[in-house]
Amino acid sequence: MANLQAAQDAGPRSSLHIPSYVSGYFDGEGCFSVAIGPRPTLEVGWEVRPSVSISQNGDRAEVIERIAEFFACGSVRPDRSDRTVKWETRRLLDLTDVVLPHFRRYPLLSGKQRDVQHLDTICSMMLSRHHLTRGGLVKIMKMAESMNPSGKRRYYIEDVERTFEVKA
Amino acid sequence: MANLQAAQDAGPRSSLHIPSYVSGYFDGEGCFSVAIGPRPTLEVGWEVRPSVSISQNGDRAEVIERIAEFFACGSVRPDRSDRTVKWETRRLLDLTDVVLPHFRRYPLLSGKQRDVQHLDTICSMMLSRHHLTRGGLVKIMKMAESMNPSGKRRYYIEDVERTFEVKA
Repeated sequence: MANLQAAQDAGPRSSLHIPSYVSGYFDGEGCFSVAIGPRPTLEVGWEVRPSVSISQNGDRAEVIERIAEFFACGSVRPDRSDRTVKWETRRLLDLTDVVLPHFRRYPLLSGKQRDVQHLDTICSMMLSRHHLTRGGLVKIMKMAESMNPSGKRRYYIEDVERTFEVKA
Repeated sequence: MANLQAAQDAGPRSSLHIPSYVSGYFDGEGCFSVAIGPRPTLEVGWEVRPSVSISQNGDRAEVIERIAEFFACGSVRPDRSDRTVKWETRRLLDLTDVVLPHFRRYPLLSGKQRDVQHLDTICSMMLSRHHLTRGGLVKIMKMAESMNPSGKRRYYIEDVERTFEVKA
């Protein structure tokens, strides 16, 4: 986080507190999501994929690079389809050890903080391997469904429960 | 700004620095713009309208209300066409005395800070009444044209200069 911290002293008049700036930026543009998809090689049949990401138009991508430096994890890649640049991390330990502690200490002020809290709970459950049990998976899906209400969701709790019935 | 400052102590673990959060939020979602339009009642024939605004989906409008409290100026109004809520101030003294000093002290980290600086220069010129002279107006238009490059612009320097030629 050293590089971005240096930006704090960028100008003689700048009093910017970078961690709080990052939270403000994420409150507008950040995405806290949990995708669920079929994965036949897992006994439970479904995979849980938590992620945190943020995008920006390519012509203002410098902030995305700074956020990558700040968290010192995840990756930055251009999305040529809509000319944006995206930082994202999907690695569980990046989320539990770096990203989520940041948003506990510097919380979002909008209702999006609820998404952060759901993601936090889901990642903790994954650390405890609850996502590999039917009960845990259904709990996770219910929380995931309440996140990103405007997003497109491909699988629903009913889909998961149907596969359980087939297997039973 | 007292109310929003109180949010800083919202949670026992929150160390959020609200002014820096506000700058981060504006770096993603804020709009710093200068509109130019014909105004026959002015001798120079054109009006300069600087503004700072920020929008959010109506279901997460609480941050917009908090930003209005923070700056203690401008107004919040719903935009029913796209179900967003917008905070905006167009008042010159709000801009020069409240909003722009904030972004000097807590600058944006993206290239959008250039828009802030152009707006700052234009507002200072307006305080000195330069926008009422042809030379000042053309300078302002050049700066305004370099702002919000992706936005739709209705009038160009050529339009202004054409009206000068007609009058001359």
